[in-house]
Amino acid sequence: MEDVTLEASAIKGVEYLPLRMIDTPGGAVLHMLRPGMPLVPGLCEKDGKDLLCVGEIYFSEVLPGAVKAWKRHTEQTQFFAVPSGTLGIALYDGRASSETYGKVQTFRLGRKALYALLRIPCGVWYGFTALGSEPAIICNAADKPHDPNEGIKAAPDSPEGQSIPFDWKAPFPESVTG
Amino acid sequence: MEDVTLEASAIKGVEYLPLRMIDTPGGAVLHMLRPGMPLVPGLCEKDGKDLLCVGEIYFSEVLPGAVKAWKRHTEQTQFFAVPSGTLGIALYDGRASSETYGKVQTFRLGRKALYALLRIPCGVWYGFTALGSEPAIICNAADKPHDPNEGIKAAPDSPEGQSIPFDWKAPFPESVTG
Repeated sequence: MEDVTLEASAIKGVEYLPLRMIDTPGGAVLHMLRPGMPLVPGLCEKDGKDLLCVGEIYFSEVLPGAVKAWKRHTEQTQFFAVPSGTLGIALYDGRASSETYGKVQTFRLGRKALYALLRIPCGVWYGFTALGSEPAIICNAADKPHDPNEGIKAAPDSPEGQSIPFDWKAPFPESVTG
Repeated sequence: MEDVTLEASAIKGVEYLPLRMIDTPGGAVLHMLRPGMPLVPGLCEKDGKDLLCVGEIYFSEVLPGAVKAWKRHTEQTQFFAVPSGTLGIALYDGRASSETYGKVQTFRLGRKALYALLRIPCGVWYGFTALGSEPAIICNAADKPHDPNEGIKAAPDSPEGQSIPFDWKAPFPESVTG
């Protein structure tokens, strides 16, 4: 199928897949998830063919300059694509047993930056902001339905948030960092 | 789960489900698909729990004033949500054996109009435009992967397109029509 390649990442279990954008006269078509892709939430079989197995699909809008941080999950794996606007997303590996424990990584996701599918595993802290003047829209096709009792939040100015070596008040990094 | 009700429609098999929009300070969270909803592409079981079974997820951008019409599918059922902008969508029942054969129906989909999940069955012609000054973004969680050999297109000025009693040059109807 598509000419897509799964990319390695500074944080173990964080993976991203650059996706195709197909220009058409009335507006672009943007891929997100197909059964043949090397990065999917899960697969199920129907009539002998593989289909996607997904827990929930929802959108999260981020207003320009707003910061939504920090959050990590214990059960749910996130699969993000950004079809509108540009998302600045920071990730921090807070898993004590991880070989990349303590690493920070950032991405600029969106059609004007890196249009990709991003997998965020359980235990990795993440936060995001919208870069530029437009709202960013995240589409998340998570592997499990949202459970309000499952995610853990830590505001940037909380003791736990302050232990993460990333400053939301500084200019967002230009490129992917290790 | 959510306070959502499946709505009847003028065209047999066209169904729509108004969805929740949850305001948060940094931007809204918008539902699209969960296993418990009364309108889903399909379900699969994993570890004794229902998950969504989906063929493909992609986005289609529609630029302001652009018309993408007409199209109908023979195999793939569409599940549209519009997280950004306002989509004017027209549907025409061209299924000779349908009890609503010949009916036209329109929707204004988006957060400023009707934020909903729309199901378009096989055989029903559809076309859309972006209303207002912003592009509209459709997210489609179709029941099967896209197959370029499967959909049938008819430009509005083609003989088949002209047989559909809907005028893309007239102002788009204000509300859902039967």
